[in-house]
Amino acid sequence: MVFKKRTRVDLAKKILLEHISPIERRERVPIKDANNRVLAEEIVSAIDVPDHRRAAMDGYAVRAEETTGASPSNPMLLRDGIDCVRVHTGSPVPDEMDAVVMIEDTIPAESGGMVEIRSAVHPNKHVSMVGEDVYHGDAVFECGHHLRGCDIAMLGMIGISNVQVYVRPRVAIIPTGSELVPMQSEPEIETGKIRETNGLMVGLYVKKWGGIPVYKDIVIDDPDLIEKEIRASADCDAIILCGGTSVGARDYVPGAIESLGSLLVHGVGLSPGKPAALGMIDTIGKTGDETGALPVLSLPGYPVACLIALLEFGRAAILKLARMPLMPDRLMRVRLGAKIASKIGYLTYTRVHVTGGVAHPVMTSGAGILSSVTGSNGFVVIREELEGLDEGDEVDVIWIE
Amino acid sequence: MVFKKRTRVDLAKKILLEHISPIERRERVPIKDANNRVLAEEIVSAIDVPDHRRAAMDGYAVRAEETTGASPSNPMLLRDGIDCVRVHTGSPVPDEMDAVVMIEDTIPAESGGMVEIRSAVHPNKHVSMVGEDVYHGDAVFECGHHLRGCDIAMLGMIGISNVQVYVRPRVAIIPTGSELVPMQSEPEIETGKIRETNGLMVGLYVKKWGGIPVYKDIVIDDPDLIEKEIRASADCDAIILCGGTSVGARDYVPGAIESLGSLLVHGVGLSPGKPAALGMIDTIGKTGDETGALPVLSLPGYPVACLIALLEFGRAAILKLARMPLMPDRLMRVRLGAKIASKIGYLTYTRVHVTGGVAHPVMTSGAGILSSVTGSNGFVVIREELEGLDEGDEVDVIWIE
Repeated sequence: MVFKKRTRVDLAKKILLEHISPIERRERVPIKDANNRVLAEEIVSAIDVPDHRRAAMDGYAVRAEETTGASPSNPMLLRDGIDCVRVHTGSPVPDEMDAVVMIEDTIPAESGGMVEIRSAVHPNKHVSMVGEDVYHGDAVFECGHHLRGCDIAMLGMIGISNVQVYVRPRVAIIPTGSELVPMQSEPEIETGKIRETNGLMVGLYVKKWGGIPVYKDIVIDDPDLIEKEIRASADCDAIILCGGTSVGARDYVPGAIESLGSLLVHGVGLSPGKPAALGMIDTIGKTGDETGALPVLSLPGYPVACLIALLEFGRAAILKLARMPLMPDRLMRVRLGAKIASKIGYLTYTRVHVTGGVAHPVMTSGAGILSSVTGSNGFVVIREELEGLDEGDEVDVIWIE
Repeated sequence: MVFKKRTRVDLAKKILLEHISPIERRERVPIKDANNRVLAEEIVSAIDVPDHRRAAMDGYAVRAEETTGASPSNPMLLRDGIDCVRVHTGSPVPDEMDAVVMIEDTIPAESGGMVEIRSAVHPNKHVSMVGEDVYHGDAVFECGHHLRGCDIAMLGMIGISNVQVYVRPRVAIIPTGSELVPMQSEPEIETGKIRETNGLMVGLYVKKWGGIPVYKDIVIDDPDLIEKEIRASADCDAIILCGGTSVGARDYVPGAIESLGSLLVHGVGLSPGKPAALGMIDTIGKTGDETGALPVLSLPGYPVACLIALLEFGRAAILKLARMPLMPDRLMRVRLGAKIASKIGYLTYTRVHVTGGVAHPVMTSGAGILSSVTGSNGFVVIREELEGLDEGDEVDVIWIE
């Protein structure tokens, strides 16, 4: 496997992302289905929240001026229901009242119908004001805001029951390789054949990042059939191929991308994942978006290399298409239980198992050994400039999701 | 709001979790639907992966002994198709061959049908062995393993098409409060009323953590009706109530829990979120699980307090029930753009907006101001022992999902 050149991961990603235009198509959904979606409209509140003054404490609503000088040694007597009104946290403060005395500063007087007020309050004390949370006319969310559970509650609170969001990008997933048989093939498969599982793996991550996987059939190692399937998938918003991306005699995918558009990158400083290729193809007859090109990612067929290249390039591409934020990783800050090696010039994903605050490297290498990932709970990512890490080094381990 | 005692968050959580038994009910699902589920069976591979020796490089499969002494200056000539066979990365190595010479170390000889071998190889060089990834009989996943995308690919690879997983816990969500109206109420609501949105918010997070939300109707502040609804929800695996949890005259939920089982904690050192209560109720006529009690969480009605108490107690409870791992948080390590205050004795959630590597505190307080969360992208969590943090302090900001 000799690549003419090897592009650094950050540069390769930058080149790819510069070519990707975020999705423009929109749809309207009920807010209960809008969690984890991206707003395609600005949301302005038509109402005040709260729309009335609320008691911030349990106690008695009063006219503040009538409590002047009140103290435990000098309580004021107010008529219950006339000069003061019992209120609970969150309940409306009557229009004629302007403050709340906390319940612990009051005593129902022995003479019926009266309340002893044992603390003086200023106007607005313990009163939540109208619009304290949201004023009518406030722009509550910008267009492009990624909606979380708390945001959905806010939408409900201001009386909005459905919102316009960007559609989720459709991502065609094309497994290639003459050695592949469909995953469902049971119970025995011909020796020399391999069950195709990269497609489903890629699809599950695509879904997780906000895309809609569109699963395509296996394509054998034939340049014409690969080109044909890529063209047939141009109604999607992105295409991910698995396999056939290296520089061997049967690696036809990068060539197919080149002939249908442009190959931006082939060969990256990523380990595992070196043979990945990134490109754009021209789209003919594709409707709905302004762009005339769509991204095509050619990932290695070996499952670990496929996964790592997907995490680096697939995630970035789909998040940009979907207008989703790049969330920070789930991190465990621990010490390395043993030395790990890496090659200078490669961003290296080492699989580790973190237990008891120590990251133990999983001592299998090889881009084809999927059990090295399934037996791990984290990645230690080693920068290009480094030649491995030492036992005892403090590392940020990325939780494998 | 005066609590007789205030339990530390870590202790309160420990008490709650000690009372919770993980779910025992199981179901069988196709592997494509098993992502993010928890295995309820051990998975043992019935096959070897790979089930044949594979070429690890493009080149020629050879008998290693026939390459002894080969070099660029002393090439060996082998008969193509007889003494050596062209192989591609991943393709089977013929039975009679035991090594692969890389393509760059070979030249098709000028005399037809012959190949120049310019490098000596040892037996097994560039050959992936049978079972290199998984041996038949290997326990690939333990019972209780949380399935990720890469794990699903592994299941497919070893020929498994469906798996037994634990069912997702059903979580009843009961909003309480006489001031509440259903969220769908449009377009105008009576002054003094509030749209109920905590229920949906809680439900969206419950779903995210692996539970199934079971939405119940609003219950007014009436102790009998609250008890009745809790009893009616005892067919679920957990119950979360929102509102009515403080110590005011209309806070009936903790009392209802007490009368139906036991109130473990009422009042916690959490800000916002102090009034939260945690308990267990006895279940009568509930089937399927060994435990005779189910957890009941009483969360504050103010939306920010509700959310924070949910993140602290709801998440832990649901993950334990569902047997899901407690994943590390998504973290941003940044500097604090301004001083923030906190009260000693309270685990304090401060809302911040992180931009350009700096966390800017959102300068609104109050457990009722939901816009303080929706306008933020992170929480700075301040430990009980501290009295705030200073401008410039390095902090781990938790990304709000």
